[in-house]
Amino acid sequence: MTTTPAPADIPATPPPSVAPIPHFWAVIPAGGAGTRLWPLSRQSAPKFLRDLRGSGRTLLQETYDRLAPLAQERFLVVTGRAHEAAVLGQLAELPGEAVLAEPSARDSMAAIGLAAAVLERTDPDAVMGSFAADHVISPASVFAETVARAVEVAREGWLVTLGIEPTHPSSAFGYIRAGEPLAGHDAQVVASFVEKPSVETAAGYLAEGGYRWNAGMFVVRPGVLLDLLAQWHPEFAAALRDLAADLGRLEEVWPTLPKIALDHAVAEPAAAAGRVATVAAAFGWDDVGDFDSLATLLLAAGTPEQRLAVLGDADLVHAVDASGVVVTGGRAVAVVGLEDVVVVDTEDALLVTTRSRAQEVKAVVGALKDAGRADLV
Amino acid sequence: MTTTPAPADIPATPPPSVAPIPHFWAVIPAGGAGTRLWPLSRQSAPKFLRDLRGSGRTLLQETYDRLAPLAQERFLVVTGRAHEAAVLGQLAELPGEAVLAEPSARDSMAAIGLAAAVLERTDPDAVMGSFAADHVISPASVFAETVARAVEVAREGWLVTLGIEPTHPSSAFGYIRAGEPLAGHDAQVVASFVEKPSVETAAGYLAEGGYRWNAGMFVVRPGVLLDLLAQWHPEFAAALRDLAADLGRLEEVWPTLPKIALDHAVAEPAAAAGRVATVAAAFGWDDVGDFDSLATLLLAAGTPEQRLAVLGDADLVHAVDASGVVVTGGRAVAVVGLEDVVVVDTEDALLVTTRSRAQEVKAVVGALKDAGRADLV
Repeated sequence: MTTTPAPADIPATPPPSVAPIPHFWAVIPAGGAGTRLWPLSRQSAPKFLRDLRGSGRTLLQETYDRLAPLAQERFLVVTGRAHEAAVLGQLAELPGEAVLAEPSARDSMAAIGLAAAVLERTDPDAVMGSFAADHVISPASVFAETVARAVEVAREGWLVTLGIEPTHPSSAFGYIRAGEPLAGHDAQVVASFVEKPSVETAAGYLAEGGYRWNAGMFVVRPGVLLDLLAQWHPEFAAALRDLAADLGRLEEVWPTLPKIALDHAVAEPAAAAGRVATVAAAFGWDDVGDFDSLATLLLAAGTPEQRLAVLGDADLVHAVDASGVVVTGGRAVAVVGLEDVVVVDTEDALLVTTRSRAQEVKAVVGALKDAGRADLV
Repeated sequence: MTTTPAPADIPATPPPSVAPIPHFWAVIPAGGAGTRLWPLSRQSAPKFLRDLRGSGRTLLQETYDRLAPLAQERFLVVTGRAHEAAVLGQLAELPGEAVLAEPSARDSMAAIGLAAAVLERTDPDAVMGSFAADHVISPASVFAETVARAVEVAREGWLVTLGIEPTHPSSAFGYIRAGEPLAGHDAQVVASFVEKPSVETAAGYLAEGGYRWNAGMFVVRPGVLLDLLAQWHPEFAAALRDLAADLGRLEEVWPTLPKIALDHAVAEPAAAAGRVATVAAAFGWDDVGDFDSLATLLLAAGTPEQRLAVLGDADLVHAVDASGVVVTGGRAVAVVGLEDVVVVDTEDALLVTTRSRAQEVKAVVGALKDAGRADLV
């Protein structure tokens, strides 16, 4: 789940050569509790609110830090009502109206579509870029340069998706198949989106070339996005536009909106219609999907001989012949004679597993819910 | 490190057929913090103060429970000053004078020798039996019957050691080599004590027969023990007898006593002189030396299909495809995809290791001391 990870010494803000992009609006969907980083990530404290790199900044804050030089004060964060206060607390720079609080989770099309509808009314020249709040990206300068390129393409009416250059044949991501080059731009038309493949199929993609990871990052003019949505879901698009005209009706309208991912609602049919472009993204990217991914990320930021990564206070960890990752939670942690172990210590719950079994943590979360321990998940 | 472990349903008190033994005094050395059960066992709370079987009674209390039907109120517990209050708290049945508090740790000869010297003055007909406070033994009825046999032999002037029937070629214990049968008794003269052997050598002992584990349990008349000590360490024996006559001098005399184990000071030379007898002990015995031993003990008390033992609140443990042992400490513990794992959760420290590496926990304790974390050990 990892590309070249972020070295620890990459500065939070890009170099001065990164210029603000006029009318560029950063949209940050901050949702999706997930369960594969339990007990570090909880429904009450999802991973975007966490510092997963030991950088002193949470993933949400790092996302903001990357985008602020480009968007300046033009931000919209879309998050669950339960996290509105935490988001505003972590991003004290933002005014209250920069956070759109969803009454309930209704998947990405509703969340990002609402942001688009709001921006369409706010700034007729707006180009929005949507970037999840819980990804790790570096270096920020390459990210900024890539976004700037995507904005240029988007201004011409394309739905532009950032395609991550694959570093290995991952089966964890969907792929973007790039088609014809776009005249006048360092970009290509998207031939198609491809569902998560097997590792073997993915290896074939890499050998063939022209395939990129779909990280769900895209840049588009709000009106273009809504017009595309209107082609396949006209009532949905109309409802979002009506809602943006009167946000007081959010509580009433929100539960009636379809639960559908933006990829399915717009990106895939639009690609089939030849309306989607892609720019190649050469930055390191990681969605920190599980503790195996976290271990890779942290170890890559360490010294070459480091075998055991620590997130938290490394002085608390006493290891003898051990490798893997330890997330500390305030207590001393001793690990003896275990390879590729995952130990996550929190105040009320402890996880012990291995990097290769890290995905199965979601089964524990399910079992905890069944056991009536919703307080822990 | 385990013989047939104690089924959970063995009652704490033996059946009524176990009769009190006149003039039999139970001596319980309660010392030795050890480090291989860290962080469950600490210097401030050694394992004898812990409930290691989930029985609701600590090892010290279980030791008392086994001996009370035989010794009635005749107990002497020898422990460190730091644990005096805890011992009296756990054994509320005992009067304060039944606990001898050592000003400092001076090994087993001083501790048990002082008890012998006190008993020599208290009861001229006393036979003492010395049983460590931190062993697991069952069934209590077989233990009682074995002790009663040993007392009969000891009354005739022998130093009697209980020899545990080996269940496997352990390299963790010293062995007793039984010699000639003792006329009129179900007992043998001890030919020699043998240091901890290799597993290969131990296998040879078992094939040869006549070898038993030395569990450090012996029965003897106090005067016989002190007279034997006087043969090889006359000043030591005299000092102990003087001290018993005036316990007010404990603080002054104690630091001058030799630090030596009873085995070396008396048992080994006495065996060489033909003064030691052994009775075969057919009860299950476990010194719970490390977490591997604890896992064996707990799993043997469980159902045959049980693979993961839990000490503490089993409702806190959520395991997926895991075996080994978890010691809970009040928080939820999830274990996913680990075989023979050891997880010990306490308020201020957490241990994760494997059963086969459990012995190396002592290295962690050493490292913690070096790191200035004496508060944790």
